[in-house]
Amino acid sequence: MSTGRLIGVGVGPGDPDLLTLKAVKALATADVVAYFAKRGNAGNGRGIAAAHIRAGVIEEALLYPVTTEIPRGDAAYVDALEGFYAEAADRLSRHLDQSLTVAVISEGDPLLYGSYMHLHVRLAGRYPCEVIPGVTGMAGCWAAAGMPIAQGDDVLTVLPGTLPEDELARRMCSADAVVVMKLGRNLPKVRRAIAAAGRTERAVYVERGTMATEAVMPLARKTDDAAPYFSIILIPGCEVWA
Amino acid sequence: MSTGRLIGVGVGPGDPDLLTLKAVKALATADVVAYFAKRGNAGNGRGIAAAHIRAGVIEEALLYPVTTEIPRGDAAYVDALEGFYAEAADRLSRHLDQSLTVAVISEGDPLLYGSYMHLHVRLAGRYPCEVIPGVTGMAGCWAAAGMPIAQGDDVLTVLPGTLPEDELARRMCSADAVVVMKLGRNLPKVRRAIAAAGRTERAVYVERGTMATEAVMPLARKTDDAAPYFSIILIPGCEVWA
Repeated sequence: MSTGRLIGVGVGPGDPDLLTLKAVKALATADVVAYFAKRGNAGNGRGIAAAHIRAGVIEEALLYPVTTEIPRGDAAYVDALEGFYAEAADRLSRHLDQSLTVAVISEGDPLLYGSYMHLHVRLAGRYPCEVIPGVTGMAGCWAAAGMPIAQGDDVLTVLPGTLPEDELARRMCSADAVVVMKLGRNLPKVRRAIAAAGRTERAVYVERGTMATEAVMPLARKTDDAAPYFSIILIPGCEVWA
Repeated sequence: MSTGRLIGVGVGPGDPDLLTLKAVKALATADVVAYFAKRGNAGNGRGIAAAHIRAGVIEEALLYPVTTEIPRGDAAYVDALEGFYAEAADRLSRHLDQSLTVAVISEGDPLLYGSYMHLHVRLAGRYPCEVIPGVTGMAGCWAAAGMPIAQGDDVLTVLPGTLPEDELARRMCSADAVVVMKLGRNLPKVRRAIAAAGRTERAVYVERGTMATEAVMPLARKTDDAAPYFSIILIPGCEVWA
């Protein structure tokens, strides 16, 4: 019995030219193109890939029931998301059962802090599955800043800004190169943690890296606390300027 | 006075289809294409990008004077590499001074443990400079393994296998998701550190991820100690299977 194929397609951090040739081919030949979006929103990932989605292809919009309205730790948040991913996997499996190829658009890289992996763990055991890696958001940001991030024996530590302040500070103290993701409303807390770790001086703030509205500045010169969720702080490693 | 432009072009981890559209365009329009290679070797990066290098373009092969013959800590190694990068930057600056666009091929991403950054720090202050981010080796490897690497509040720690054994073990103990790069002759040491940190069970070994000769296996089932320099060990984060 033939079944369909699931493809997680990394579309990169924002600039449509940062799609890979492989991602373009996968989108051009898929029977179904699925993407995640916030309700009432066209979907960032879909927007990045728009030029390569065939007219008339079946599209599946997977609309998050909640995003930042409920704190991530809440049982209500976990329940809502679990149900959502189960239902989304079920929707895609109906296409896969009809031998269709389903491409799931993933901003950045599909397997690094991405929503795609929730479908992957639910479907990869049942259907043939391929992941096309993408340029990550952090790589887009350090390219935008023109900042070498790690070299030689540097350890690179990637920290979600959602972590508690004391844990952020402690991990930054022992880190060489640091990337802090998921800033948004966490920026004031992250800023305090960076100061406590004595790392403010070389920290760089990047907003919407590789997008048309990209902004790059030393963290010390960012005076307000407004940051989109897709903003990042970069601290280069110790061996970088050697 | 017009001058040339330097472009660091990430060409991804091995599969030529993992070049981005932006990398393809940069290579198609560059006046000079430079690449790093080991003496007597055609250059991995150049091989990945070969289909997109124009016939008749000026090529600059930047040949490492040493690679793994001398330990990285040795003064002789540092001296040889410093001189090499200074000379390479000088060679490219002669093209830049003639208003030519110089694309430097970088395996993976140019600013993450890449040789390109040694040219960038020497030339970016003197010439307009652009970095095109690429799919990293580690993203290629976790895609090849079909392994979600980090999710939610997971901290991702990237460790060069060149670090001392006790430091590797200590950092793995406090890490969630772990990537160990630069294995090569460091594999036995890295394996002992992973065992000491109690992380062997979920560790996956990936060799030449996304290349034709790719191999993926649980670390526990890799019985020999032979590993190419471009092999990686992946340990998924705590929240990945939630």
